[in-house]
Amino acid sequence: MSDLYDRMFRDARVLGCFSAVAHVQAMLDVEAALAEAVAEVGLIPATAATTIRAVAKAEHFDLEILRDESVKSGNLAIPLVEQLTNLVASTDPNAACFVHWGATSQDIIDTSLVLQLRASLPIVIQHLDRGVAAALQHARRHIDTPMPGRTWLQHATPITFGLKAAGWADALDRVRTNLRTALQAASVLQFGGAAGTAAALGTSGPNVARAMGTRLSLAVPDLPWHAHRDRLAHVSVALGLVAGTLGKVGRDLGALAQTEVGEAHEGRGGGSSTMPNKRNPRGAAVALAASIRIPGLVSTVLAAMPQEHERGLGGWQAEWETIPEIVQLTAGSSRAIAEALEALVVDPERMAANLLLSGGLAMAEAVSMALAEHLGRREAHSLVDAACRKAQESRRPLADVLKDEAAVAPHLTPLDIDRLLAPAGYLGAARAFVDRVLLRLSPNSDHHA
Amino acid sequence: MSDLYDRMFRDARVLGCFSAVAHVQAMLDVEAALAEAVAEVGLIPATAATTIRAVAKAEHFDLEILRDESVKSGNLAIPLVEQLTNLVASTDPNAACFVHWGATSQDIIDTSLVLQLRASLPIVIQHLDRGVAAALQHARRHIDTPMPGRTWLQHATPITFGLKAAGWADALDRVRTNLRTALQAASVLQFGGAAGTAAALGTSGPNVARAMGTRLSLAVPDLPWHAHRDRLAHVSVALGLVAGTLGKVGRDLGALAQTEVGEAHEGRGGGSSTMPNKRNPRGAAVALAASIRIPGLVSTVLAAMPQEHERGLGGWQAEWETIPEIVQLTAGSSRAIAEALEALVVDPERMAANLLLSGGLAMAEAVSMALAEHLGRREAHSLVDAACRKAQESRRPLADVLKDEAAVAPHLTPLDIDRLLAPAGYLGAARAFVDRVLLRLSPNSDHHA
Amino acid sequence: MSDLYDRMFRDARVLGCFSAVAHVQAMLDVEAALAEAVAEVGLIPATAATTIRAVAKAEHFDLEILRDESVKSGNLAIPLVEQLTNLVASTDPNAACFVHWGATSQDIIDTSLVLQLRASLPIVIQHLDRGVAAALQHARRHIDTPMPGRTWLQHATPITFGLKAAGWADALDRVRTNLRTALQAASVLQFGGAAGTAAALGTSGPNVARAMGTRLSLAVPDLPWHAHRDRLAHVSVALGLVAGTLGKVGRDLGALAQTEVGEAHEGRGGGSSTMPNKRNPRGAAVALAASIRIPGLVSTVLAAMPQEHERGLGGWQAEWETIPEIVQLTAGSSRAIAEALEALVVDPERMAANLLLSGGLAMAEAVSMALAEHLGRREAHSLVDAACRKAQESRRPLADVLKDEAAVAPHLTPLDIDRLLAPAGYLGAARAFVDRVLLRLSPNSDHHA
Amino acid sequence: MSDLYDRMFRDARVLGCFSAVAHVQAMLDVEAALAEAVAEVGLIPATAATTIRAVAKAEHFDLEILRDESVKSGNLAIPLVEQLTNLVASTDPNAACFVHWGATSQDIIDTSLVLQLRASLPIVIQHLDRGVAAALQHARRHIDTPMPGRTWLQHATPITFGLKAAGWADALDRVRTNLRTALQAASVLQFGGAAGTAAALGTSGPNVARAMGTRLSLAVPDLPWHAHRDRLAHVSVALGLVAGTLGKVGRDLGALAQTEVGEAHEGRGGGSSTMPNKRNPRGAAVALAASIRIPGLVSTVLAAMPQEHERGLGGWQAEWETIPEIVQLTAGSSRAIAEALEALVVDPERMAANLLLSGGLAMAEAVSMALAEHLGRREAHSLVDAACRKAQESRRPLADVLKDEAAVAPHLTPLDIDRLLAPAGYLGAARAFVDRVLLRLSPNSDHHA
Repeated sequence: MSDLYDRMFRDARVLGCFSAVAHVQAMLDVEAALAEAVAEVGLIPATAATTIRAVAKAEHFDLEILRDESVKSGNLAIPLVEQLTNLVASTDPNAACFVHWGATSQDIIDTSLVLQLRASLPIVIQHLDRGVAAALQHARRHIDTPMPGRTWLQHATPITFGLKAAGWADALDRVRTNLRTALQAASVLQFGGAAGTAAALGTSGPNVARAMGTRLSLAVPDLPWHAHRDRLAHVSVALGLVAGTLGKVGRDLGALAQTEVGEAHEGRGGGSSTMPNKRNPRGAAVALAASIRIPGLVSTVLAAMPQEHERGLGGWQAEWETIPEIVQLTAGSSRAIAEALEALVVDPERMAANLLLSGGLAMAEAVSMALAEHLGRREAHSLVDAACRKAQESRRPLADVLKDEAAVAPHLTPLDIDRLLAPAGYLGAARAFVDRVLLRLSPNSDHHA
Repeated sequence: MSDLYDRMFRDARVLGCFSAVAHVQAMLDVEAALAEAVAEVGLIPATAATTIRAVAKAEHFDLEILRDESVKSGNLAIPLVEQLTNLVASTDPNAACFVHWGATSQDIIDTSLVLQLRASLPIVIQHLDRGVAAALQHARRHIDTPMPGRTWLQHATPITFGLKAAGWADALDRVRTNLRTALQAASVLQFGGAAGTAAALGTSGPNVARAMGTRLSLAVPDLPWHAHRDRLAHVSVALGLVAGTLGKVGRDLGALAQTEVGEAHEGRGGGSSTMPNKRNPRGAAVALAASIRIPGLVSTVLAAMPQEHERGLGGWQAEWETIPEIVQLTAGSSRAIAEALEALVVDPERMAANLLLSGGLAMAEAVSMALAEHLGRREAHSLVDAACRKAQESRRPLADVLKDEAAVAPHLTPLDIDRLLAPAGYLGAARAFVDRVLLRLSPNSDHHA
Repeated sequence: MSDLYDRMFRDARVLGCFSAVAHVQAMLDVEAALAEAVAEVGLIPATAATTIRAVAKAEHFDLEILRDESVKSGNLAIPLVEQLTNLVASTDPNAACFVHWGATSQDIIDTSLVLQLRASLPIVIQHLDRGVAAALQHARRHIDTPMPGRTWLQHATPITFGLKAAGWADALDRVRTNLRTALQAASVLQFGGAAGTAAALGTSGPNVARAMGTRLSLAVPDLPWHAHRDRLAHVSVALGLVAGTLGKVGRDLGALAQTEVGEAHEGRGGGSSTMPNKRNPRGAAVALAASIRIPGLVSTVLAAMPQEHERGLGGWQAEWETIPEIVQLTAGSSRAIAEALEALVVDPERMAANLLLSGGLAMAEAVSMALAEHLGRREAHSLVDAACRKAQESRRPLADVLKDEAAVAPHLTPLDIDRLLAPAGYLGAARAFVDRVLLRLSPNSDHHA
Repeated sequence: MSDLYDRMFRDARVLGCFSAVAHVQAMLDVEAALAEAVAEVGLIPATAATTIRAVAKAEHFDLEILRDESVKSGNLAIPLVEQLTNLVASTDPNAACFVHWGATSQDIIDTSLVLQLRASLPIVIQHLDRGVAAALQHARRHIDTPMPGRTWLQHATPITFGLKAAGWADALDRVRTNLRTALQAASVLQFGGAAGTAAALGTSGPNVARAMGTRLSLAVPDLPWHAHRDRLAHVSVALGLVAGTLGKVGRDLGALAQTEVGEAHEGRGGGSSTMPNKRNPRGAAVALAASIRIPGLVSTVLAAMPQEHERGLGGWQAEWETIPEIVQLTAGSSRAIAEALEALVVDPERMAANLLLSGGLAMAEAVSMALAEHLGRREAHSLVDAACRKAQESRRPLADVLKDEAAVAPHLTPLDIDRLLAPAGYLGAARAFVDRVLLRLSPNSDHHA
């Protein structure tokens, strides 16, 4: 895959966390922590650990050789350890013996992935923070801006743009919390040696693990998790929830920006190579693309879970590029939605105009409910249903049809009908709902000022 | 899809939670709670609510008509409300007006799914409980039973069967906890009326919601969640983690039961139509099949998240059968693994015999580590590597080759070599790891007695 | 999964092909053909085959016992053979010995699935035929009906509804052809006995297979395919392509039916439980739901392909419900789209009105291209771009802005500008494209009459 | 995603086809062909086309700017056209006007992807050719090498390694043919201008398309396919079938290489960072990883199919990286399996030894079938079943148990029993099946010599 789309679909800082150099450095950080931990429990000389730490810098490593050698060895850690050993040897031949002491490739590879997740996911969360904040601002500003509610892509009863934006904020907050939980749960050291007993360290395995955990600020599990991938899968599915929710926001943004709808558009929309008039919903496209791609990638991580015995054949390898890809695409999506929401241009006039489009049909429920008090829900429903059909067929406003309707007249005056069909008067608890979200997510803003 | 495989792949009690009748009853429970809630806030007469509750019994409903009418209406709630209204009318014509008061189809359908999840997921958790308990018992019993560790399907250093079983218990416990969390997070009422403002109830929507939540023992959200599906997706991905972990246990069980391995087999294994000698790993097959099917189903739920505006076109409908299917297949898998672990026949002699298979090659690391103290890791590794190759080519035990090796003799006596190559002496922290899991998950058992 | 949604998401006839009874009958058809084939090559008495054929009727079988016993045996064929043997024995004890002669469960299960595919896929193809025919009729009728082209959900240059409909027909035809090819390629007998050598038949395996193939009208492969699932996966992915294309049609139908767009709606649209005015795009919802569900199911079939050795552990079992589900959901989608297209109500006036919506902006390219001949593409593009922005900001028609533009005047008269901005004059090859599709797919219609 | 795993999971030549430079060059090739085609029909000067062709070299383009600008424009074609126009202008200011004449971004992007598929898929096919050839050689060489057949990972009746290898060849050939068909079907020009009517070219669109098709050696469709993605999805699913079949071969290779099985191993297997004795099934791991990753990616392409109107919002963008990724991972898998099969070390002695492992139980069917002629299938089956159980429990060879069995003695002599339990005598049609595959796929080899 070429890198031509990296900036469109990804995020520069998160890309940095998963660059070849960052990946190598993360593995070296684990090797250095291992050396120090093994030295701490007295199995190797402290000087060896010092030397290993000193040379464990990605810039000293030849990535070309890593790429080539990993094909033969089947993973990156083996050639990395080889190069690290050579580098250490050139400084302190004695210390070279102590590189990678007691560890196996998977200890390095798994733990380095955890380090990369810990570096990158907070960036995703920052983008979500921006998205939530921007959505809350729209919610606050448009708490009383009526717009058509839409179900099945048809006008339903009116809502407010504030309610829609509060819904976005509420959901984004929820998946953000999930992501934090998953990251916390996955911030766990993997250290078990060749088959998970750390036998090469005698009975010192747990002590070495504890010291590594302290150095890397990672929790130490009750037993090594190399054969059980649920923690990494947990992060992956949490990102899947994030991407799905961002896709929902993108779906709404794209739909609102349609030429015929025009209720909101991305202030930084893209152009067209041929059509000068286009203002494309660029952020929506990025988020929707991610929401189409990430479910398949998440299914890969789940499908890879049943790994054989003490190390998977195929399943483990399937994770190596897939999990970083999920992080990166979610990062790109979260950034795109943050930017789109921040720069969103909202058009309350167009919303008001669209509310008129259906000639009152969208408020039919209001009349239906009012009549129900007199006629019962069913009779009211079928009466209004007939009036709607008549209005549609004759292309007359529903108000006019209802005012002419003999069965309605005893219960509703023309004034009643006009009042019932006014969108701003039929917003139910929209304001209360928005208030609750604002109160929870931005309690200190004086949002009613 | 015929129901011929229901018992093989599913669980009878969970099937019951998702039967046509149970589904209808769950929707009726929501309608009844709604009626009572609306009566409680004074919008409809209490007697109407009483009648609605009284007739809201699935056995009174004609499912054939439901199936047919739902094709026209596009969802099940519309014809359900129709039948409910008729039933109420036949008892109390006045009450019929108040059926489904202020609600929309999605309120009923979404909340009824939440009720079905709340009924069914504890059954999955019970199966997981059994699986964890059985795995812990194996862990306790086999805390000192050595067996080959296997990576890349090749013998690695030895582990114990107790460690493998403790790993299963540890992971199953983790995904069980996730599932509980997700169920808790999703046990939330959906109530928003036509487009999420509950406008048909004036400003009483929040009060009605609160009363419904109390009656249904569901949390009440800050705002209706109909357009945001993350809570249901959260449950789905949590089940995906469960199914993946069960698949991992199944993978191990199937691999251990291989004719050539024979270290454990399912006591209740299946037969063969032609081969009388077969004892098939039936539970493993069920769990592996589920672990192959569920990732795709989870990806569907994630892909369905970006739903349009206030109600999805396609995405919402895609959930209706998919989420129940995920629950059911996970339930079947959890039951199959619980039964397989409970009836598992473990063969420690075969484990011991298999440890000898590789002529000591699997313990090569032990010698490598011991020599490393004298020669450095790299030289030791390459020396032992050469000895291994010689042993393989000449088909001699590694011990013999090493004893003949001039470069080894100064550092290791023949006795040292034999000791190093004994699997039981090279188990590292296996016991400590198992102890920690036992302590956490079955603290009251006197497992060392 | 309850069957409440069977009629909404599936097709009655295809459901019939996959009912429990039909499934059992298909397995029995294979057993009967096997018995006759083995008799034909002289391995068992002809009378035994006659008896087996005579009792091999699904109505004689106890499905409850099948369901229960299959849990123990791990597949349906074992208890089926047991029941069949008993039935034969009760008629002709001698013949009972010859039931299932030389076959294995997988022979019966795989071949019966092939028979079910052969019965059901032509029904899907019939629905596609209807869909293609209806789309072609729209293409013919609306070959000159202009409507907005839309990219990024924004108005682009105009198209015709005929072009859109011809595109649907063209694509549906293509995936229909693919499906026929895949069905043909998968209409292959599986017969290999216990491990694929048909050893129980001595060297008569190929002859028995040939005779079975003749009886079942199935091709006979060079070697048994039990361990290689590509033929079934081929059918599954072909259905995936069908479902994706139907989803595309559904996406368009839903988008065209939006309240703000209103250019076409499904004549048989669904209602709403609360909003009497709704005419929901029901067929679109079914097709979109299927297009969201089927990709995950197809990924399951692909993920199940790497099956172990001579019979899979998990992979094979994962197919049993998944492949029928793919067929059924595609059938439901194809039926829904056929019906939606047949009953589609098209509103050319609304299309014309929508073309005016963007005040000529959608035709900007026409002016751009005309000016490019004088000013070059780039200068023309940026000049028109500026005019569009001015038109948008001032909310004036683009024509007026352009007529006021000094840089345009030397090259285009006001009349030129009006002509260039008329949608009907800027349809390029739309008619030619539609003609080619009509010529290929309905060559005998006198479509220009 | 870093490129550290490119060599492990991908193929150098195919990577080349999808590099940033190759991608840009493919787009430029389309622009050049467009210019020449438009010149050919007389819409722009021939000299302009000549200049455009001359400067349309990827090495002249600034990829950094492309990456940056594409973020704003939402696709790569817009900034590419910008740079191309500048380059042309610096040579021939007049020609600059004619760059990208009448085309839209999607024409360039879609057609360039087709060109990349046409360049890369033959490389996949070459790897498959090698894989088929290597498998056929094993089939020929081991046509009479018995080994255990295995179902449910349990020994079933014996097969030959030749039969297993012929099955691989047969299936690889089938998916190779599918891939060729799909590539052929997708080798189609996309050219439709802004919304698919090519209106900017007046009525010359079809002629321009024809000329472009000739220049690019691509078929010209009846109408532009920009809104219908089935051709690209067709290629993607065909690759899915290839990857699944390669995964099956990988699954078998990994299983055969297990320490306990040891019947075949990859001659170029990987090492271990800690365990000198390991010979890891590296090719199997690559193929299995691909077979776990590709189903999710294929599901993405299918899920992306329902694209909105004349250009998708999200769906189209989701394809850009996903389809190249599917090609690349399949290429890597096909190369890995080709190499693994070519270097496969087969161990017929181990196969023979493993056949003895089950003490004759795997041949139980032979006895069962022989007895069935005397006792009927059912009685024979249960008699042999009992003998198998006795053999297993007493750990005696089945032959001994059967010879002691009173009910057997009247029908089978000890010699009969020994003969029936000899694997080489119970291979059924294995040889005939292999011969048929050899005859079809390598008809000219004198394979029986």
